[in-house]
This record gives sequence, structure tokens and C-alpha cells, in this order.
Amino acid sequence: MQLGVCYYPEQWPRAMWADDAKRMVDLGITHVRIAEFAWSRMEPRAGVFEWQWLDEAVETLAAAGLKLVLGTPSASPPKWLIDAHPDVLPVRADGTRWNFGSRRHYDISSETYRRECVRIVAAMAERYGRHPSIVAWQTDNELGCHETVPSYSPAALGRFQRWLQQRYETIASLNEVWGNVFWSMEYPSFDAIGLPNLTPTDANPIHLLDFRRFMSDEVASFHREQIEVLREHAPTADLLHNFMGFFTTFDHYRFSEDNALDVAAWDSYPIARTESIALPEEQKARFARTAHPDVSAFDHDRYRAIGKGRFWVMEQQAGPVNWAPWNPVPAKGMVRLWAYEAFAHGAELVSYFRWRQCPYAQEQMHSGLNLPNNELSPGGLEVRQAAREIAECTALSTLGAPTRASVAIVFDYETQWMFEIQRHGKTFDYQTLAFDYYEALRELGLDVDIVASLADLSAYRLVVVPSIAVIDDALVQQIERSSAQWVFGPRSGSKTDAFAIPGNLPPGALQRVLPMQVLEVESLRPTLTPALSIEGTQGTAVYWREHVRANAGTRVAAQFDDAWPALLIHGKVRYVAAWLSHALHRAVLQQATRDAGIETQLLADGLRIRRRGGLTFAFNFGEQPVQAPAPSHATFVLGAARLNTGDVCVWKDA
Amino acid sequence: MQLGVCYYPEQWPRAMWADDAKRMVDLGITHVRIAEFAWSRMEPRAGVFEWQWLDEAVETLAAAGLKLVLGTPSASPPKWLIDAHPDVLPVRADGTRWNFGSRRHYDISSETYRRECVRIVAAMAERYGRHPSIVAWQTDNELGCHETVPSYSPAALGRFQRWLQQRYETIASLNEVWGNVFWSMEYPSFDAIGLPNLTPTDANPIHLLDFRRFMSDEVASFHREQIEVLREHAPTADLLHNFMGFFTTFDHYRFSEDNALDVAAWDSYPIARTESIALPEEQKARFARTAHPDVSAFDHDRYRAIGKGRFWVMEQQAGPVNWAPWNPVPAKGMVRLWAYEAFAHGAELVSYFRWRQCPYAQEQMHSGLNLPNNELSPGGLEVRQAAREIAECTALSTLGAPTRASVAIVFDYETQWMFEIQRHGKTFDYQTLAFDYYEALRELGLDVDIVASLADLSAYRLVVVPSIAVIDDALVQQIERSSAQWVFGPRSGSKTDAFAIPGNLPPGALQRVLPMQVLEVESLRPTLTPALSIEGTQGTAVYWREHVRANAGTRVAAQFDDAWPALLIHGKVRYVAAWLSHALHRAVLQQATRDAGIETQLLADGLRIRRRGGLTFAFNFGEQPVQAPAPSHATFVLGAARLNTGDVCVWKDA
Amino acid sequence: MQLGVCYYPEQWPRAMWADDAKRMVDLGITHVRIAEFAWSRMEPRAGVFEWQWLDEAVETLAAAGLKLVLGTPSASPPKWLIDAHPDVLPVRADGTRWNFGSRRHYDISSETYRRECVRIVAAMAERYGRHPSIVAWQTDNELGCHETVPSYSPAALGRFQRWLQQRYETIASLNEVWGNVFWSMEYPSFDAIGLPNLTPTDANPIHLLDFRRFMSDEVASFHREQIEVLREHAPTADLLHNFMGFFTTFDHYRFSEDNALDVAAWDSYPIARTESIALPEEQKARFARTAHPDVSAFDHDRYRAIGKGRFWVMEQQAGPVNWAPWNPVPAKGMVRLWAYEAFAHGAELVSYFRWRQCPYAQEQMHSGLNLPNNELSPGGLEVRQAAREIAECTALSTLGAPTRASVAIVFDYETQWMFEIQRHGKTFDYQTLAFDYYEALRELGLDVDIVASLADLSAYRLVVVPSIAVIDDALVQQIERSSAQWVFGPRSGSKTDAFAIPGNLPPGALQRVLPMQVLEVESLRPTLTPALSIEGTQGTAVYWREHVRANAGTRVAAQFDDAWPALLIHGKVRYVAAWLSHALHRAVLQQATRDAGIETQLLADGLRIRRRGGLTFAFNFGEQPVQAPAPSHATFVLGAARLNTGDVCVWKDA
Repeated sequence: MQLGVCYYPEQWPRAMWADDAKRMVDLGITHVRIAEFAWSRMEPRAGVFEWQWLDEAVETLAAAGLKLVLGTPSASPPKWLIDAHPDVLPVRADGTRWNFGSRRHYDISSETYRRECVRIVAAMAERYGRHPSIVAWQTDNELGCHETVPSYSPAALGRFQRWLQQRYETIASLNEVWGNVFWSMEYPSFDAIGLPNLTPTDANPIHLLDFRRFMSDEVASFHREQIEVLREHAPTADLLHNFMGFFTTFDHYRFSEDNALDVAAWDSYPIARTESIALPEEQKARFARTAHPDVSAFDHDRYRAIGKGRFWVMEQQAGPVNWAPWNPVPAKGMVRLWAYEAFAHGAELVSYFRWRQCPYAQEQMHSGLNLPNNELSPGGLEVRQAAREIAECTALSTLGAPTRASVAIVFDYETQWMFEIQRHGKTFDYQTLAFDYYEALRELGLDVDIVASLADLSAYRLVVVPSIAVIDDALVQQIERSSAQWVFGPRSGSKTDAFAIPGNLPPGALQRVLPMQVLEVESLRPTLTPALSIEGTQGTAVYWREHVRANAGTRVAAQFDDAWPALLIHGKVRYVAAWLSHALHRAVLQQATRDAGIETQLLADGLRIRRRGGLTFAFNFGEQPVQAPAPSHATFVLGAARLNTGDVCVWKDA
Repeated sequence: MQLGVCYYPEQWPRAMWADDAKRMVDLGITHVRIAEFAWSRMEPRAGVFEWQWLDEAVETLAAAGLKLVLGTPSASPPKWLIDAHPDVLPVRADGTRWNFGSRRHYDISSETYRRECVRIVAAMAERYGRHPSIVAWQTDNELGCHETVPSYSPAALGRFQRWLQQRYETIASLNEVWGNVFWSMEYPSFDAIGLPNLTPTDANPIHLLDFRRFMSDEVASFHREQIEVLREHAPTADLLHNFMGFFTTFDHYRFSEDNALDVAAWDSYPIARTESIALPEEQKARFARTAHPDVSAFDHDRYRAIGKGRFWVMEQQAGPVNWAPWNPVPAKGMVRLWAYEAFAHGAELVSYFRWRQCPYAQEQMHSGLNLPNNELSPGGLEVRQAAREIAECTALSTLGAPTRASVAIVFDYETQWMFEIQRHGKTFDYQTLAFDYYEALRELGLDVDIVASLADLSAYRLVVVPSIAVIDDALVQQIERSSAQWVFGPRSGSKTDAFAIPGNLPPGALQRVLPMQVLEVESLRPTLTPALSIEGTQGTAVYWREHVRANAGTRVAAQFDDAWPALLIHGKVRYVAAWLSHALHRAVLQQATRDAGIETQLLADGLRIRRRGGLTFAFNFGEQPVQAPAPSHATFVLGAARLNTGDVCVWKDA
Repeated sequence: MQLGVCYYPEQWPRAMWADDAKRMVDLGITHVRIAEFAWSRMEPRAGVFEWQWLDEAVETLAAAGLKLVLGTPSASPPKWLIDAHPDVLPVRADGTRWNFGSRRHYDISSETYRRECVRIVAAMAERYGRHPSIVAWQTDNELGCHETVPSYSPAALGRFQRWLQQRYETIASLNEVWGNVFWSMEYPSFDAIGLPNLTPTDANPIHLLDFRRFMSDEVASFHREQIEVLREHAPTADLLHNFMGFFTTFDHYRFSEDNALDVAAWDSYPIARTESIALPEEQKARFARTAHPDVSAFDHDRYRAIGKGRFWVMEQQAGPVNWAPWNPVPAKGMVRLWAYEAFAHGAELVSYFRWRQCPYAQEQMHSGLNLPNNELSPGGLEVRQAAREIAECTALSTLGAPTRASVAIVFDYETQWMFEIQRHGKTFDYQTLAFDYYEALRELGLDVDIVASLADLSAYRLVVVPSIAVIDDALVQQIERSSAQWVFGPRSGSKTDAFAIPGNLPPGALQRVLPMQVLEVESLRPTLTPALSIEGTQGTAVYWREHVRANAGTRVAAQFDDAWPALLIHGKVRYVAAWLSHALHRAVLQQATRDAGIETQLLADGLRIRRRGGLTFAFNFGEQPVQAPAPSHATFVLGAARLNTGDVCVWKDA
């Protein structure tokens, strides 16, 4: 449980640096991230490097005892570079080029830019790669942010055509797999294929999907070009990238394969995230000052998987931010709570953004641990409290690693892409569906692992698949070998890898373990709500329902009031034939956990718990005081069972 | 009463073709449409034709006894054509070119493309034009779909300038008629005139209107270039085009003049249409699974006029579709009901879209008569039922032609364009107003003809003109000669042919038969609702009201609560000085039908009836069971008087 | 109190001109504006002038005894000019060029166009500058309308770079002041700086602000180039420009400095304005036919300041217009009322738009004093009534100048720009906040002056600053010297001139007179409404709240229910730490007026009063009849105390 901070020495007078370093250490901070975005100061003109300021900043921070994370500056190519290579600017879907003047103004497929990035990263890494205080390197910043990926540039087109050629080998094969006979979309050659933008009506969904797959690979290969340089020059440092919350533009599992990172770091802004995602208005209103109780946890659990157990919060909200439609001040206690929450979910480090609010430029309304006048901000005061609590409590400061949960949720990036490409009803969003299942499990007091469908799932007792577009043999074999209960949501197995409907109808290969077929599907306007009840819980389908047929041996465990099956069970496998209203999702999961022999407890409204290393953490995100479900004689290492809004308590497991 | 289906042999293995043909015939299908969209298979490279597959497909279907409709493939130019002639791609209003990758990616004004279309149609027609089983040809597909008309291309500009020159002869005349002295918009020559896009504020409305007139003519001339070829090579076939519902981009009456088609075919997707058009949310909710009771009927009646009595449904929704904001499964019975409804309104053929759901490409979520696994879909089962019912009932299978109704509604495309260009209030939509009047007449149990203002209206006893922007002498003469009751809605006669206000004020020439003048008009925000009552029915103006003056001899039959006249009557002519709430429109029409000696009956909620060839058809679109208004001793040829949701009955007229 | 009208002789047959002139005079009109938009008639081909028609029009009008205002035609460059210089067309933010075909299709930074404008204005002014009947000249028309300012053209870029060079002298200075070290945004030279459009995320706010400052200066310099010519050739005429309501694209105070105009004229369309601005839906509904009671008054008071006491209404709504989302007919009496209202606020002239409704082109749905058939419109009849009333009443026809009010509201254009650039919460709009304070003062029966922050404020007894982004020493010195009460709203002093947060935190320099600091700010979604009460009035914060600290000597006079201070007072200075619900703003102002010794009276709903030259005017904008607060023995020069909707009365002050 270590605390860090993001710092931009180039933005402050050198005279402040030593004092800043000292105050960081005094506050209890151990790690500091610097240098991302500072390209124009490292290399003010092409080929002219100025390292002195950075040398001095590194030495000043290191001298205070801080460990450093260095960021590569590729998210902000300087103006001289853009002027020399205007083709580095990315292209919007409407064909317009983005301009210089903010950040991320680069085309991820530009070979010029990739060469320039390797050059600057090599220069940095050669100079600082073996510095004993530099313990980690971060590539770029929030890859894919600001919708500059995908770029619809000539560079992207050329690389997409080559990517397709590698995937399909012959144009005949591509035409066949894509089904280009439809609407005479057949291509005479790979170099005749265009990008799927600006088509009068929908492009072929597999064209769109392959473009997303390609762009996901582009992001990964861009990162890996930097990793290769860093591995060579910084062989002992942890390499990482700072991902974003609720972000699915690229496949984070694939990104992280092949030793492409050591730690999955992510940037956690729970209040702005709550305001921005597709939550019901009622929940946005209710959690406006605390953030939704699961919005950070969902990504903590996701990035723990992506980091193969190791994850950091690289940027943690420290007060009001500047980028959501509205930006309220967090409720008292939340800045401290979010640190404990991250640790409870397994974070090694929680690093706040940023040391001091910058009074100028784009982020001047983004708070930090210090106000612009250099006094600690309200958030800074909470961090000081947390740091002291941790320092004073061995149980917290020496907390063990998290253990595997008994429940897993499969989250799959390609499923997100496929159902964005083919939403079919405008309220269908896969990630929101997955989040709804996650929330239901968390309300039941369960720890949850989020996993890839390709992960080894044999150790879980319950595997929840809110949906997965493509069900392949490997997954079916996992089910067959598994002793767990399995819950599949709607649209599972509804597509092949080539974005087509399986020949045996959905759910495709899942039929081997759950004989049933989907005959018709329907997206539901908000006024269409087929009703049903499951074990006494009343509710409806929302957004999506399927008309399914239970085949031999499959039991219909619940049905809608118009007699269509709602819940089908065959042995340990369940299929939920609709997006259900929330309480019904929870009812299905309660039934499945019961069958799996997993104990659950319905937590008080707004309360969440998480176990790690022999401790249980409890958090109150709700508006009312609640009682944490600690055993009556529990030993508290932090706080007490009664939790006001924003409170945390931690007790030792029996 | 014949049933058809749309089929794409090129999308399926040849091994399936013969079985498909046999199963079509077994189902009761007589007609099959093929070949549209298959250009890349007919001519895979420029000038290289491959007919063998199509020969085989035609022979296989014909051998099974099916009649064929061949579609020309001009809606999907292949990639090699686009690569050779990139200027074929259309241009959006913002100046961007659309891309290849879906369909309709062609500029209707491109002379290159017109030449290419004539070439491929000639090649097809020479080969298949005299085949005895090919009974009809369809040009292109859904002309104007996907907003590729208008195109703002250089080709369109050049042809627009020539079109203007033909219309106005001299630039001085154009400047005068357009009123270009306003804002110094005068043009020195025809080639100085631009397209009316990207103007900082509104372009001159007559500039916009003439561009719409021109584009409407472009669509017609594009079609006619193909018709000319087809008439030569397929002299005995019915020539047609498949139009769309609620679609007003071009003037369908003008399109169909001069022998330009033999049958008006249209594509009927009632549920997606109900979701997409400007209906009150309450109606969208209520009819989400049955479609609005008048949404198909309105276009059946419209296309019966456009086809001069002959119309087909070329594509009929057979289950859930893929393109509306939400796409529910139709209520049980609707797929069958829609066939009977089309026949009742006079359709010769109802052809379902499509034979089998295509598991790949853009329409994979669009249902057909068969599921992708080749079993009959729920819709397919309903079609089988309907086919058997018809086959077993002579009264249905030998149904006579529909007779002229006693009531006509005038629908006018230019009025739609004018009031789109000059909506004046954002809730004013002419087609929606016309639909509201149509619905009121249908609720009164009336059969309705929809007619052009230029049609001979002398045989009608009631003519309803929901609005018509330009009232010319010819129309006034019709009124003068007519013995019918006439009802004119607001904005009637408010414009001249040059998109100006008549010199004698609106309603212009109508004043000859109805002395009155419109002094001021107002568009009404939803909260502004001047109240009134008509013969005991309470209601308000909505969206639009006029301040009018009744001149000599005109009677004010109803007035608003602020004393402005609402309903003016002079002899047989009525003027409704506002868009009234629905029940008031019905009250006005009840009064007018009474004066016309037409008997009406207010039907139960959701119930509709239609007469054809000595039979009366009744349909229940509502949520509750209803009793059809059959005489007590009626002879039913189908069903019975009690109708559940989605039910049909048919009885013999006394 | 004089009445005018806008007239376009070129749009009507010459045969009508003399009769038009006579009917104007008969109606009571003294001033007529002509010639704007007539460039293509003055100069139909490059360099070929045709003055005869204009000579004749001028003489015809003058002969009838009318005084003329001549408009320069630069808002409508003719087609031959655009064809010769296509670079005159402005460029949209997305990089697309606007087209010819409406008006304002010119780039305000185009040096070609500026040269052309000077040329046509010189030609006009040489010919008509000394004509005895031409009493005023108007430059262009509604500068900045239709969002053609800013233009993102190469011409704008070049001039922007030079403007920056003049402001910052060295690129190092610019980089320092802009804080371009942030995100490596440093520029190597002035000619490397781009326009702030098409950046992937927010551009640097100071970049955006300096671009707005530059564009504001461009508008002013464009106007001044014409003024320079006019001063030379029309030395005795009043020079003016017709500004718009609620329009903040440029700084109207700076525009008007240095003798750049003699009279501030503006165009008043109260009903369309009410529909268009960010008012609560409830108010839009309530005042749909009368316009909001303060919407015109706000701009009357603003333009009185901009004209240094002299203002005209150049265009006054005379009936329904054509450009709002909905365009209702005004309530009876309003066309008359608006004239008296303008006079009461100090207008010298109220000129109606337009003489006769033009039956063709873009404004055919815009009413005038005459219908297209040349009979007086309902609005025309009301103007006739007003003209007669004024003519018959010496007190009205010889009304004195308005006197200084005791209350001032500071309105600041740069504040609007800054908080548009950095709205922070999507419901924050500075002008709307200022309007809310203005409304509260007017409800209290007060006359209000609207002033620039740089004005001499020493004579006021209450100065209200709804917000002001930058508080400089000059303003603090005014406060220190002043004996008035001062009320500052939220975000006051939150920025420096370089768009940065002050080093001592907000409210910056204001702390000298009001010791306090803003620690954190929050924008509030509509569901977040911290509650408070002030002197018994209950309410909440809406949209915006600050967490502030009262420093030594400052009293917390009200606080929110979570204990954060809401109202801070130090001596005569108040700070309101939130956007408050309306009644609370009024409560704060009631308190402040009481402390200032200003008497107030809460007016009846919908009633407003205004004093001028010894008379008090009262207006009823509400739905119910009200009693004007005249003394019991008041002498009425117009009307009586009881006012129906749309009524006016005027009495002599005791």
C-alpha cells in the first residue's frame, strides 16, 4: 500500500522543486511520476536535446528519497515535429485532419511518427534507463484518448490493407469470409479496400470489426515499439502504461500479452466517470458526490487481470475535475476512501493526480493535492490522513496480495466492438450489461475476478458471462471440464469470428452444453417491458429479449408473461434470454451462487466490501450511515462498523 | 391475391437453389424477385460478363413454376467501376464525398454512371428480356434511400444550371422570379449559380425548391434511361420500381408519368416505419408490436394512385428488422395480417423480404421467411397459413379490383418540399398533417383514395386537402365544377409556384370560391394551444394557427377562444385555419361527410376496415379484442367478427 | 420619441415609392433606413455604378419630409465580387468554406474584402454624404450574425499571428504567458501558431481567448475602416451600427471607443429572443406572446451605455417573425408597448422592421407594418395608434433624457468569452447569470444602468457585479474610493488577464477589500442543489457553487446546509459564493439596497416600471391584469393604472 503522485517539474520554477520533494515525502508519498508531455523541453528543436533540467529534477526528487516513474512524451509531439511532418496529424472519420494545439495530435499508424517516438524514447532511456531511483517507465499517456484512434489516414489505410493481407492471404478468401457478394461489395485486390468511413449506409460489419481489430493491434504495436527500447535500456524497471476507465477502444488483454508490460496502471476518476457513462439518471443523481460504488472497483478488477495480478492506480482523482458535463466536489472522505478501495482490490500503488493544481492551460480547473497557492487542498489533507493511518498500522502497510475470488465475470473486448457495430437497439451496450451483472455480484458481498474468456477458469465456482459474441470450442471445453456454475447472458454465441450468425443459430457452440436455439431477437424501446418473476422477484426485460426454444434436456426455469422462456438451465449452465431489470439479474445470480455453494449476503444500500490479505475492507458510498457486516467480535485495524457517507473500516478476518 | 418473395441466389450455395424453389412453391409463393445488387457477379471486371450462374438460377426457379421479377443492379456499382470513375461517388451537403463500402454510393447526376447503368441494363435485358418466366423488371432499388439524393457534386451543379436555363431561359428572368434583388443575390449568368448548400444562413427558398425540383427530375430521368432499354428488350414485362414508405424526396406522380412504369411497387416495413416517423410517443408505444393502424394503408392508397390502380408490395416485413432505433418482434398474426391488409387496399402481389435471413453482412439481423438454418421462421409460418387460406377460398383467390372511394385526400409532394424548406415552426410537417387527416377518415370507417391535385376529382363526394402550398387555376376550376364537399387545411394557397406569397394574400386563388384572407400566421410551441370546440368536440390548435379574415359571404363556423376564426365555410368549401388536435380534425370531417351524404361509423379503437371486390376486410391493430362491424347475418369468408390483436376477418358485402 | 421604419425601395416597383413615402409620413414616421443589402443594384458589375434608382429613392423619400439613414451594403457582397475573389468567403471551424447564396458570406479578415468595402462605401459617401435629408449612416448589418465570425481562414490566421506578435512581441513571451510548457505546446515562432480549431481535445484556453479578442478587434477595425470614410464625406451625420440582442461575439465597449460611433443602434426582436435564449422552459411558455419582461430592457440599458447615452432601436419587431424555433403572433398591444418601453429606457428613435412584408426570398415570413397586399398589418395599426398618442401629448413628444440610475450592473464581454471557453459545467452561462440579477433588480422596481467595469462608477449607490473573470487594480481602487454597496457573484476574480488562476487564489485582487479565498469550485448537475436561506427566503444553489474560506474580518452572512459559506460581507462588499435560485438573488439585492438606502417595491408579477424625464412608464407583460404602482393622485399622460396584458400607462412623477 504505497502512495504516489504525478508531478510536472517543468511547469514550476526550479526554486520550488526541492521543497516540493520534501513535502511529498512528508506527506507519505513514495513514488512520483514525471516527464510525460515534456518533449518540447527535452528536445526543443529537432535533434537538439536539453537534459539538464530533467537531470536536475530527477536528482532533486531522488535525493529526497522518492522513487521515480518516467513517462515517455509521445502523447505530445512538439510543433517543430508537426511542421516538419504534417502527415503525423490524425484524420477524423469525416476526412478532416486534426490540428496541433492540445495533445494526442498524432496518427498511430504514421510510420514517420513511430520512428520519431522510438528516437525520443531511446534518447531518454539511454540517459535515464539505469538510474537507481527510476523504478518504472510509462509509455505515452492514455492511449486512444480523445478519439484520435481510429485515425482515417492514408497511413492507416496502407497498414490496414497489409494487416488484411496477412489475415486473409488472398482477396478471394477475404471476399468469401466477409460475405462481399452482398451488395456487390467484392474487392478485386487488397489495395482496393478502403476504410469503413463515409459509407452512405452501414458498412459491412466485418469490415468495421476488422478495422477495429486492426486499430487495436496498432495501439499495441505502437506501445511495443517503445517497450522494446525500454527493455534494452531500463532492464530492471517495471514497464507500464496508464489505461483508462470504461475504455474499450483496444483489446487490453492482447495489448498486455507477450511481456508487453509488467504492471497494468490505470487512471481513476470515479466522479467524472459516473457522470459520463450510460447509468440511469437516478443513479447519477444519487452518487454524484461519491461516484457509483462499483465504477472504480469494476476497473480495479479488470486491470488486475490485465496486469496478471499487478496493478497500480497511476492517476487518482484528488478533488473536483474539469472534464465531465458537471464537476462537483467529492463528498468528504472520498479521496481517502478511493485509496483504500484500490488497495482492497489489490493495487500496489495509488498515485494521485496531481501534486499541485496548475493555474494555467487546459487543466487549470483540475484539482491536485495542493492548491495553486501551494497549500494542501481538501483532497491533499485526506491523503495525508490516509498516509498516516497506513504508516501507523502494520496490518495495512504490510498487506498481502489479494487471493483469487470464487466468482469470475468474463469481460470480452471484441464483444463490445461487435455490439457497438451492431447495436440493433439504441439502448444496448455490452459493457453496461456486464457492469449490471458486476454490480449485482458486489451487492451480494462477493469478491469478483474479471477475466478473459481465454483465461484458465478452472478454479472458479461460478463463472458469469454477461454476454460473449463468439463462443469457440475452447470455451465450450472449459465449461465441459469445469465444475462451476455458468451463467450466460443474451446474445452469447450469437456471432462467428467472421461476424456472422452461426449456422446452427445462436448460441452456436454453446448448444453442446445447453441445447437451445434463438429463433428471433428483439431490441426493446423503453416502453416495451415483457414481465416475469424469478423466485419471487418481479421485474421485466429491458432493452433486449430473445425468443428461444429449449431443446432436448434443457429446462425452462422462468418464462415471460407471454410464455417465451426467460431462463434456461441445463446442468450447470444457465442462459438468460434477455437483458433483465437489475433485481432479476441479482435473483439469477443468487440462484446460481446457491447452486455453486457460495455464501452471499445482500449488503446495505451503498455499502461494499472487499477482502485482501486477511483483512476485510468496508466502504459506504451511500447517503445514509450503515453498519458494516463485521462479525460481532471483529478486530478493527481501521475505523469501526458504523460508517457515515465516505467512511472506511477494515477488520481482520476470523 | 398472390404472394411473392425476394431471393438472392448468389448468396447461397447452388446446391440449395432447387430445394429453395420447391419450398417456395410448396409455401404458396408464385413470384420471386432476384438479381438486384448482383452487379459484381454479373460483371466481375469491366466488360467481362459472367451469366452462367444467373442463367442457372433463372432456369431453376422457372422450372419450379415460379414467375420472376428481375432487378437491375444499379444500386450497387462494383468496386472496379468506382476505382475507374471515382467521380461516380456522391457528395454530401458538407462537400465530403461518400465512400464505397455499402450501397447507393453513386451520384444520380453523374453522366459516367448513367452511361454505365444503361450498359449493364442493356446487357441484362438483351439476355433475359424475352424469357417467358420473367414477368417483371424492377429498376434499381429504393431510389433516393440513405440520403444520397441530393448529391452536391460538380455533376449535379452542371446539370442544375442547365435545368435552370431550360426553365427560365434568361438569367434576368431567373433573377426576377427568384427575387434575387433581396440581399444582392443576383446572378450574372446561369453558370454563376451554385448549389444551395453551405450558405451562412438560409438560402433563398426558391433556390432550395428549384434544387429539389431538379433532383426529383434527376431521379425520374435516371429511372427512365433504364426503362427505355427495358421497354425495347422486355416488351411484355411489367416494369416497376420499388418505392419506399413515407418517402417524399422526389415527386412520385411526375416520376410515374409518360408510361414510366406499369406497376407502382413499394417496400412495406410497418413496425420500423412506426418507430421512425414523427408520431406522438404515446402512439409509438401503443403500436410498437402491431405498427400504427394507418401507416401501411396510407402508402397502399398512395401507391395505388401512383400506379394508376396497379400496385404491388415488393418487400413486406416478415418479422423483426434491423434498421429502426429499436426493432421488436411483431405481435403474433401481424405478418399474415399485413398481407390481407395490402390485398384489401388493392395490391396485386405481396412479396415478402426475404426468403432466408442472410447470416452475414449488413442485413444479418433482418428476418426472412426462413431462419439462417433454413427452418421456417415464425413469420414464414404465418405466410404459409395465409397462402393456404387464400388457396382454399375462391372469394379471396379471385378477388376483384378495388373500386373508387367516395372520399379523396390530395397529397402533394411540392407542398412537402416547400414546408420543409420553410417549416416556420419546428413541429410543422405537412406529411404528418396529411396523415392525421387520413387517420381520422379511416377511424370513421371510410375507404380513401389518395390523389394528386392534378387528378380528375370529379367523381368524389368529399375531397380533403390537408394543405397544398400552391393553388392554381386548374384546381379552383375543379372545385367550381365539382359537386363534392371540399376541406382545405392551413397554409393552403399560401405560396405561388415561385415560392412567394400570393399578391392577394393566402389562400391565393382559393379566394375565388372561399372569400377570406390570411393576415398573419403563427407557429406554436407545444405550450401554446388556443382552444376551441366544434360541434361539441373540445380541442386546441397545435403547432400552427392563422389569423384570418372572413370576407363577404363566408361564414365563420367555429372560432378560437380569442375570437379568431377557426373554421370558415363558403358553400361546399371549408378552410381550417389551424392544425387542430386530432379529435377536432375528425369533427370537421364528420361535418363534411354529413354534408356530402356519406355515411360514417366511428370504429373501435385499433380497428380498421377496407372494402374490395364485394368483400369487407377488418383488422385489429389494438391491444384489446374488438368486434368487427359486420352485419348480424354477414357471411364470413375468413375468420369471425370477434378479433383479437393481430386478427383479420372478411365478410361478403350484402 | 421618434418613429422610424426600414425600407427597401429596390424590392418594389418605382411606382409605389411616392405613395409609400406619403403613407409613412401619414403614419407618423420620421426616419427611414434604406440601401443596406443593395450592393448588386448600386454596382451590378465590377466598377460599374448605377446610382439613378437610389438618387430617385432618396429624393422621393426626402421630398415627403422623411429623414434618411443610409446603410452600407457590405453585409451582402455580390456574386461577381465573390467570383473574382473566392477567398472572400469565410471558413467554418471544420475547415469548410461557406458559399454564396444568402448573406454575410464574407471573411472579416480578408484584406481583399476590406479594400472592396472601403471602395463601395467611399463611392456611396461621396455621392450622398452631404445630402441634407440623410441624417445618419449605418455600417454593414448586424456584424457577427450567422456565426461567420470567427472565420478560420488563412487570412484570419495571418492577421492573428501579427496581432499576437504585437501583443507579445517575442515568441518566448507568448509561450511564457500562455503556459505552453503544458503538453509541449511551445511555438518556435509566431508564424508557427495556428488557429484553435480542430484540436483533438480542448485548445489552450488563452489561445482560444486571444483568438476571441483578436476577432473582436477584427470586427471593430472592419467597422472603423468604413467609419473613417464616412466621417470624411458625411461629416454631420450620425454614424452608427445596428447591433443585436444578447450578442457577445465582440466587445461592444471596445468597438465603440475612439469616436467609432455616435449612436448605438440595435435590433430588437423580443419574442424570438425569448424563445432562443437559455431561459427556463416555464418562462418561455409564460411569455411566449409578450416576450420576457426584461429581455428588451436588458439590451436597451446595455446599448444606452455603449452609445454613451444615445441609442436607437434600428429594427423593432412589428409582428410575428420567421427565425425562432416557433414564431407566434405577439399578444395584442405588444408592438405598441415595445415602442414605449424603448423610449422609457432612453431610446431617441424606434424604427420598425420593415415597411412592408416582402412576399419573396428569405424573409417572406417576417411581418412588417404592411401586409404584402399593402394594407396595414395588425402591428402597423398599433404603430399608428402610438404615433398618434405621442403626437397628441406634449409630455411624451418632448420627453427629456433619462437620468443616471442609482443602481449599476457591470456587464463584461471578456467574462462571457472566458466562461464560454471554460464553462466547467454545461449549465453555466455568464450572460444568463447577469440577466438573472438584472431581472431581480427590475422586479424590485428599480431603474438600472448597465456599465463596463472600466466606467466611472463613483455616482452609484449600488454596484452589482454578477461575475467578472478578471479583477484588476483599477476596479479595486474604484471600490475603495466608492461609497456604494458592492455585490460580487461567483467566479469573480477567478482569472488573470492571461486566463490563469490568480496566485493568491480567487477572487484575486478583490481580497484587498474582501478577505476570503476560493478553495474549490463545483459545477452542479440539476439534481445537486445545496440548500440555504437568506433573511427568510428559502432556496438553493443551482449550476455552480464554491467552497470558500472567509479570511480575517469577513463575515459569513449566510451558509449552505453543509456549512459552506454562501454570502460573505466585508464592509460594503458582498460575495455570493454560488449561482443562487432566483428568489435568493433578489433577497441578496434587497439586503444590499437596504444597506445602500435605496427604496424598492416588489412589483406585481409581469409588471415593470421605468422612469424618464419626469415620467414613470408602467408595462404589463403578464397574463393577468395588474394595478400600476402610481401614487393615488397621479396625473396620467397615457392610460390608467389598471393594465391588461400588453397595456402601458404613463404618469407624471410627483
